[in-house]
Amino acid sequence: MAAFTRLTYHQRVHNNLLSSLTGPAAARPRTFATTRIRMSLQESAPSLAVVGVTGAVGQEFLSVLSDRDFPYCSIKMLASKRSAGKHITFQGRDYVVEELTPDAFQGVDIALFSAGGSISKEFGPIAVGKGSIVVDNSSAFRMDENVPLVIPEVNPEAMSGIKVGKGKGALIANPNCSTIICLMAATPLHQHAKVVRMVVSTYQAASGAGAAAMEELVLQTREVLEGKPPTCNIFNQQYAFNLFSHNAPVLSNGYNEEEMKLVNETRKIWNNNDVKVTATCIRVPVMRAHAESVNLQFEKPLDEERAKDILKNAPGVVVIDDRAANRFPTPLEVSNKDDVAVGRIRRDVSQDGDTGLDIFVCGDQIRKGAALNAVQIAEMLL
Amino acid sequence: MAAFTRLTYHQRVHNNLLSSLTGPAAARPRTFATTRIRMSLQESAPSLAVVGVTGAVGQEFLSVLSDRDFPYCSIKMLASKRSAGKHITFQGRDYVVEELTPDAFQGVDIALFSAGGSISKEFGPIAVGKGSIVVDNSSAFRMDENVPLVIPEVNPEAMSGIKVGKGKGALIANPNCSTIICLMAATPLHQHAKVVRMVVSTYQAASGAGAAAMEELVLQTREVLEGKPPTCNIFNQQYAFNLFSHNAPVLSNGYNEEEMKLVNETRKIWNNNDVKVTATCIRVPVMRAHAESVNLQFEKPLDEERAKDILKNAPGVVVIDDRAANRFPTPLEVSNKDDVAVGRIRRDVSQDGDTGLDIFVCGDQIRKGAALNAVQIAEMLL
Repeated sequence: MAAFTRLTYHQRVHNNLLSSLTGPAAARPRTFATTRIRMSLQESAPSLAVVGVTGAVGQEFLSVLSDRDFPYCSIKMLASKRSAGKHITFQGRDYVVEELTPDAFQGVDIALFSAGGSISKEFGPIAVGKGSIVVDNSSAFRMDENVPLVIPEVNPEAMSGIKVGKGKGALIANPNCSTIICLMAATPLHQHAKVVRMVVSTYQAASGAGAAAMEELVLQTREVLEGKPPTCNIFNQQYAFNLFSHNAPVLSNGYNEEEMKLVNETRKIWNNNDVKVTATCIRVPVMRAHAESVNLQFEKPLDEERAKDILKNAPGVVVIDDRAANRFPTPLEVSNKDDVAVGRIRRDVSQDGDTGLDIFVCGDQIRKGAALNAVQIAEMLL
Repeated sequence: MAAFTRLTYHQRVHNNLLSSLTGPAAARPRTFATTRIRMSLQESAPSLAVVGVTGAVGQEFLSVLSDRDFPYCSIKMLASKRSAGKHITFQGRDYVVEELTPDAFQGVDIALFSAGGSISKEFGPIAVGKGSIVVDNSSAFRMDENVPLVIPEVNPEAMSGIKVGKGKGALIANPNCSTIICLMAATPLHQHAKVVRMVVSTYQAASGAGAAAMEELVLQTREVLEGKPPTCNIFNQQYAFNLFSHNAPVLSNGYNEEEMKLVNETRKIWNNNDVKVTATCIRVPVMRAHAESVNLQFEKPLDEERAKDILKNAPGVVVIDDRAANRFPTPLEVSNKDDVAVGRIRRDVSQDGDTGLDIFVCGDQIRKGAALNAVQIAEMLL
């Protein structure tokens, strides 16, 4: 029953750190002002599988599916052998977690994967071979030219033609969380004035490294407050009251993999190999939402008032930009919310005229940065 | 005895959060590899005053003066009426805190101010009138064209001619902490390749808002871990496990004052009105050291290996840049240290050739960002 213990603890972390501070989860809107696709359960609805269901994103897949009334006729809860046999309650029904095997995808229309790159590499093609459409949250296939990399609000056209019910499997990749959150805000501006260069610095939450990292941050914080040495199992250094360069491996060009995802995925999603991007990715002691400081250089002029209007009207985006009250987006405020929040929208004083803007973006890493985006992709398959 | 309680608590915070994690303070080197000016006590040494001695920076003034064997024949401990009468032990002697009055500067050669801008504006000119040389840590006089704004390693020439013993008072301004930490790393590169544009995103510690803010971060963190609502006295929102746009007032151009300090002070310190700077300043739940992600655009090519060499040889700078071990500067590592640490030194892939670099800088906000820099300025007066 270890997974239950873990999930319960995870839940408690949420209750303590997030829900109790922003109101009880049930009463708290998941979104600021969103347009949801509401569907009732249908007999002809697709059969689903959630791969990596016991992880932080896996659990959020279930939460989002439920919140959005995603239609399904059946749902398989898949995880590693270690988690098989555990019980999960979903929409009032008890499910037993099944071991992920090649046979598990028999009859599955849509499989939501979030079990790490190696699992996706091994089982993604198997699922496709069985006719499943795989929405993969790992980085395994993101840069594969045959696999669409999709943010539904940004480039839905990339997956046109892929539909449930055609009897044909397919792979669709969910972008990296930092890329999704950045491009939710940058794309509407890009569509108006064309971004030529983007300098991004991130403030990334523990959740990006999984539920165990969130737990370690809580544990370390308690230890440090008690004057004890911090337990460092997930990261190789103290995280509580500290920050550090993202833990992704550093490549030969000095960028870490997380940073190069922002560089390369932006080009693929915007279908524009000319856009210049640099990024510095930093892990900060925040629980589950990322923040990003984004400096934009445009081809065409775009003044800050127009930019605010564009962002206010952008799908999945909310503008929080009250200069008098010094109220701007924070990770805590967007935690457990669907929309990405943008603020600090201002003309960049280091660029000439109106060709540059600075913005600050926050988005829930587990939700829009992972599970929600994947479920939105799945909604487009129907 | 309220101040003693506060200082004791402050000390406890340090012990718990910093010292116990990086070794006891006595055993911990204050610097990575620094060149200190060591002076023995002299009869002819200057008389000192510390204004705002009970604050976080005031306390650090004393610590730095002691660590660096700063010569003095006498030292006045000055603070508000509220703190007057309290006792401070310094270098084995008991001092009574005196109320800050115009007469307090009689016979004072060097006055180190850190009591906020309004105190500096009121008492700085009075002290100068009495013949004191004021090293002011507030923003009151930084942009005054008659007042040098000095980082000793960067622009010592700006204060040439100001010396103790000439019987003439003077004002010297200590730059903003974020500016000092940024320019400690950027200047050596600027001297080689000329920075034309700089995009800075900061990760600023609680200490920049004073000892009470550090205490509130600890208190809030305890409260949040216990599931209680956080006490928000210093900031208007939750700080524990969160981050937010810097609390400085936002100006009409959308930048906050902290950001414009980086823009304007850089120009003054570099004596170069053409350098283009933009900054986004963010408060993160870290105790006492700032981090900054700095994107640099140069006039002349500067490759990353040369940049590393330059930084390794720069005074007051230490390079921490181990890509294989993913080891780079962290705020915790530089806490209570003199040197500014630089890492993540890499060619910016968004710029052509070798005309761009990304770097990540960490520095102790209270020490090099405030007290140490001021004491170094004072050393140059002797």
